[in-house]
Amino acid sequence: MQPFSALAGIFEAHFNRRHFPEQPQNLYDASQYILQIGGKRVRPVALLMANELFCELSSDSFEVATAIELFHNFSLIHDDIMDKAPLRRGLQTVHTKYGEPTALLSGDVMLVAAYEAINRIDQSLLHPVISLFNQTAREVCEGQQMDMDFEQLKEVSLDEYLRMITLKTSVLLGASMQLGAILGGAGLRNQQQLYAFGKNLGIAFQIQDDYLDAYGDPQKFGKQLGGDILANKKTFLMIHTLNAADDSQKKRLEVLKDTNGQEKIEAVLEIFNACNAAGWAATQKEHYFQLAMNHLEETAVLSSRKKELEQLARYLLQRES
Amino acid sequence: MQPFSALAGIFEAHFNRRHFPEQPQNLYDASQYILQIGGKRVRPVALLMANELFCELSSDSFEVATAIELFHNFSLIHDDIMDKAPLRRGLQTVHTKYGEPTALLSGDVMLVAAYEAINRIDQSLLHPVISLFNQTAREVCEGQQMDMDFEQLKEVSLDEYLRMITLKTSVLLGASMQLGAILGGAGLRNQQQLYAFGKNLGIAFQIQDDYLDAYGDPQKFGKQLGGDILANKKTFLMIHTLNAADDSQKKRLEVLKDTNGQEKIEAVLEIFNACNAAGWAATQKEHYFQLAMNHLEETAVLSSRKKELEQLARYLLQRES
Repeated sequence: MQPFSALAGIFEAHFNRRHFPEQPQNLYDASQYILQIGGKRVRPVALLMANELFCELSSDSFEVATAIELFHNFSLIHDDIMDKAPLRRGLQTVHTKYGEPTALLSGDVMLVAAYEAINRIDQSLLHPVISLFNQTAREVCEGQQMDMDFEQLKEVSLDEYLRMITLKTSVLLGASMQLGAILGGAGLRNQQQLYAFGKNLGIAFQIQDDYLDAYGDPQKFGKQLGGDILANKKTFLMIHTLNAADDSQKKRLEVLKDTNGQEKIEAVLEIFNACNAAGWAATQKEHYFQLAMNHLEETAVLSSRKKELEQLARYLLQRES
Repeated sequence: MQPFSALAGIFEAHFNRRHFPEQPQNLYDASQYILQIGGKRVRPVALLMANELFCELSSDSFEVATAIELFHNFSLIHDDIMDKAPLRRGLQTVHTKYGEPTALLSGDVMLVAAYEAINRIDQSLLHPVISLFNQTAREVCEGQQMDMDFEQLKEVSLDEYLRMITLKTSVLLGASMQLGAILGGAGLRNQQQLYAFGKNLGIAFQIQDDYLDAYGDPQKFGKQLGGDILANKKTFLMIHTLNAADDSQKKRLEVLKDTNGQEKIEAVLEIFNACNAAGWAATQKEHYFQLAMNHLEETAVLSSRKKELEQLARYLLQRES
């Protein structure tokens, strides 16, 4: 069992190449561009880690890990178009740099390339791998639609938000783990435990992401602090606050929607604090972290082999112990 | 062997249903909407016809025919976004009706649904079917990119145009035929002949489409006559004319680009006529029709079984004999 950092290096060495032909140049340069922006490659490396629980790392697992990373980037390109986002990781988004039509198409061809990578694995595994991949791809689309729908709604329940965020961001981490397990020859029960481990870890990570946007250390947090507040985004913190707030606080939040700047951020944070949003988020994050760890615990492999996945969970959730 | 019309009815009975869950409603209503606009379903029915050359119609062939039709509609949704087309078959395009973000996503989920249909076939056939499907999907994207790139170019050679149109529209008909053959257990040589039959038929059909836009019977032609001319589109006719025209005709075409209305159409048609664009298009269409028929001829099945595909070719190309 290798730690995340070692497998990340191995995956990067495999993945860091041109994935597309030269022509048509506009199309494939746009596809390649987002891959070079980088990222932590958490999902494909999680797949490799899950695979290594059960066997020596297989070449098939590199193909499906590649497919997962291509799929993730496909969804980033298209989400950025839908969200009209000008920047990603401080650099121009694909549609800002190459125009919307080419960006749209470069996402399409990226999704096809993901299926091409999958189609290179052992044929006896194609059906179950494609089955889970398809289901996950569909769910990610559903989550994105729910996210867009929620922007238009006045009220969103915590359950609905949780469902949205699970589909949009967490099932892909769950599926990555399960795909690694499938390719490693794991039985169904172990596959399901690892799926649930990844999914709950993803939810905890998303809660943390929402928390850091409001309360993070500006030095460490890569984005503008309070960006979600400025964009009137419905986050875990905001949904909790709307549930916990009294009428006057609710009215104040409604008024603040039409304001802007640092004052808006501070005024909203004040109401967050009055409703104990930070404490609540910490409790929720801990809840999903524990759920994840329980599922890892229930995975029937030697405890010593699970150490690195446990480390990954702690690393992603910025926990000391 | 059943004729196109009979198989079209059988396919429609199979295909004419809701292909998506109820929720999220915006997403899946948008996906379903374009399927209900209809169309001739030429590609999936061609797949069934190719399949029936070699065996009794298999349930697998209905799954892959469904995948082909879903893929075709995915590409229509996304092309209409890229081309900013307000109408398709006289009705609102998906992005006009549901907004661009939802339309984009409904295309994505339609492509995933195509792979879901494929994943329902006999597992031993998954690899070759997905392989050809992926290659074709990628080529269709490449063709669309070339088409967009050409809009920005002053000159496009006939060879380049032919390559673009082959990728954008003709390989899908070729692939449909080959997929039917693969599912029917045909050998590689027969598969290739049917692919070439479909591809060349597709090219001839595209030449006819360009021709009808300029010279069609307004009563029969569903779209506005001269639409390509008004949009300054580079069609077979225009590219031939630019090659054949003298300097003064070229200059006149350049000037006409910035004009509009019925006068523009008539002025461009005058130059088309002076350069014998219609006669040239008829010769080219005949050339690709004959190529297609040669490949059908070379397909090693009983001649009597090929009659219906021959009829399909004549029907698509509006030939009496």
